[in-house]
Amino acid sequence: MYKLIALENGLENVQGFFCGATNVGMRTNPANSGPSDVDGDVAFIRSEIPCDVSALFTSNTFQAAPIGHFKRYPKDFKTDFVLINAKNANAMTGERGIEDIDTILSTLSSKCSVTNPVMASTGVIGYRLPIDRIASAFDTLDFSSKDSHKTARAIMTTDSFKKELAYKVELQNGESFTIAGICKGAGMINPAMATMLCFVTTDADIPKSDMDELLTLSTEASFNRISVDGDTSTNDTVMLLANKKSGNYNKEAFSDTMNKLLFELAMMILKDGEGANKLVAFEVKGAKSEEDAKKASMALSNSLLVKTALFGEDPNWGRIASTIGASGIDCDDSRLTIHYDDLLIYSDAFRELDQAREKKAYEIMKQEQFTVTCNIGLGEASYTSYGCDLSYEYVKINAEYRT
Amino acid sequence: MYKLIALENGLENVQGFFCGATNVGMRTNPANSGPSDVDGDVAFIRSEIPCDVSALFTSNTFQAAPIGHFKRYPKDFKTDFVLINAKNANAMTGERGIEDIDTILSTLSSKCSVTNPVMASTGVIGYRLPIDRIASAFDTLDFSSKDSHKTARAIMTTDSFKKELAYKVELQNGESFTIAGICKGAGMINPAMATMLCFVTTDADIPKSDMDELLTLSTEASFNRISVDGDTSTNDTVMLLANKKSGNYNKEAFSDTMNKLLFELAMMILKDGEGANKLVAFEVKGAKSEEDAKKASMALSNSLLVKTALFGEDPNWGRIASTIGASGIDCDDSRLTIHYDDLLIYSDAFRELDQAREKKAYEIMKQEQFTVTCNIGLGEASYTSYGCDLSYEYVKINAEYRT
Repeated sequence: MYKLIALENGLENVQGFFCGATNVGMRTNPANSGPSDVDGDVAFIRSEIPCDVSALFTSNTFQAAPIGHFKRYPKDFKTDFVLINAKNANAMTGERGIEDIDTILSTLSSKCSVTNPVMASTGVIGYRLPIDRIASAFDTLDFSSKDSHKTARAIMTTDSFKKELAYKVELQNGESFTIAGICKGAGMINPAMATMLCFVTTDADIPKSDMDELLTLSTEASFNRISVDGDTSTNDTVMLLANKKSGNYNKEAFSDTMNKLLFELAMMILKDGEGANKLVAFEVKGAKSEEDAKKASMALSNSLLVKTALFGEDPNWGRIASTIGASGIDCDDSRLTIHYDDLLIYSDAFRELDQAREKKAYEIMKQEQFTVTCNIGLGEASYTSYGCDLSYEYVKINAEYRT
Repeated sequence: MYKLIALENGLENVQGFFCGATNVGMRTNPANSGPSDVDGDVAFIRSEIPCDVSALFTSNTFQAAPIGHFKRYPKDFKTDFVLINAKNANAMTGERGIEDIDTILSTLSSKCSVTNPVMASTGVIGYRLPIDRIASAFDTLDFSSKDSHKTARAIMTTDSFKKELAYKVELQNGESFTIAGICKGAGMINPAMATMLCFVTTDADIPKSDMDELLTLSTEASFNRISVDGDTSTNDTVMLLANKKSGNYNKEAFSDTMNKLLFELAMMILKDGEGANKLVAFEVKGAKSEEDAKKASMALSNSLLVKTALFGEDPNWGRIASTIGASGIDCDDSRLTIHYDDLLIYSDAFRELDQAREKKAYEIMKQEQFTVTCNIGLGEASYTSYGCDLSYEYVKINAEYRT
């Protein structure tokens, strides 16, 4: 048993961590730089003392230079500094991309005492980092600031709002610890993590082995279940930094809280899905295997025809059924049922949508959030993924992104 | 050696076949019924004498009722009549959907002498066919007409133009035969065939075993390589009808000509891809295996980020590279090269797009048709698929389709 307290704001709640951002002029085109009042493009997260760090990276074979740089440190290294830039992914830049990071971080070390600093980048693929411009950030950054808002905003790309959360966990013995996180991401969001960066800080006294285990589980239940467009980026990163300063820890409480934090951040990304207006849970149950359930659920959250029907608020269950049939799982149309929230809209006995039910379905679809439940009727396995609609705005954002 | 002659129009060129269409009022909403002047919704293709028939159907587990009905005939049955309707897919209608076809076709047999008639449907999933309305077509259809235009138009859904072609093959010995085809399809177009109907008629004296073999090969090289949106419908059908009336046949000539005919029809579908303006060939070569080449090529023609970049005419090779990396094939960014037509836009030595080259790339992308070639640099295998851009119009068509 423990008590969970939601805190205002984000990373500044965790003792021993600092964060902040500055503007070095990389957002030259305001149209594709997030909200017009974003004035940061280089951010940092710093700890008073070196932290254990666990990180999960994109499944894309072409991992960006910051990931390659991170992986050059020895296993179980400690770090006290994460530098993050927007507008340039430093991806597909080869060995030179990694050298550029070394150059920037060695300049950093002349301005601020750091141990094994790491970097994360988001933005356009295929351009080398503007080294001098980014290094100029070190002249204006206040390394003792605790400005989570500004940090969360500076890492945004097509995001329309910043994403930060913090929780305090009070254990029964009176001890407590804190977990906080920020993330960015709106497009290119896919089962296999997606163009997203997420940084979680904690003062819990968590063993490194638990960090690795729990970060994997939390990510599988959150970021790995959302899809905006089925594309997987070169830069995806989820990083957990633990400075252990509280001296307190409880595995169950930490696990529950990180699950909650990452799930909520993931839902923020989905709500901010490029041009998206609706958040839909695709629950597939009664499947023969979890693999089948996952395959069908992911097919639904990735289908263009389903996404456009959601946008059009068209209670066309035919597209749901067709997508399940096309997913290649074991299924039988006489065993299948489909619900929108609690409304049955398809079963063998009831294949045609009458007007009354269609009207009810339409009311459900008008909501900002609802659940599509498909019961395959052949087994016990289930899986839920989360998707959004596809609007004109998605096309606009992605046709114009780099121009 | 043989001489290939492109003929005007379509199915009327093949001796012994009749075709036509009528309007029974199923296109109640002109907005989603193809061009406003489409006045047919029920069509037929008929042969004087029973034909051998080969057919390939959707890979969707939930195959529509007309497919279930077709499969109830004994293997190697002969047919002389195909009835086709638009606006209602007769899919997910269960056993009753097949009974409805029996009812309609038994009415047909009281109006016209038919042998083993079959049916094909396209339109919305999940509604039973209006039996009486469709059967009323038999009062006005002229079963001796040869109106391929009208037939090709009556089967359109979101298509913006009719698709028909015909070729005459003159063999060296002076003998000749004819092959003709019509098809429909614009959305839901996917590797695994897609919402498309294609009917090919021939008077060639082709053995049934060659029909099966060559239809499979031609379909694999055409309809199975195009993608508009990565969704696979419940109704996809490619059907070859051979009445053998010419008495002439040459396997190589027939094979070449059917390959050409189906490829050209497939490209028509892609050019008519819902809201699409560009036709792009995604050639992947130098892959370790054909499976890898196909996987990467299909990932490119299905990627939303690639499609929207095509629409935006953004020479952003980063999205091409990222999609290859995300496809899961064996690849290495230092071995990869990317060309737009003949223009090298990415290689290890040349990772950053300079302005001159970006301008040239932009000129290439402005074309209605071009090729993206990715050389993986690890082997000899290659595969080409064909895709199109994704525009606002796609979202509009699919958000409003059923309303």
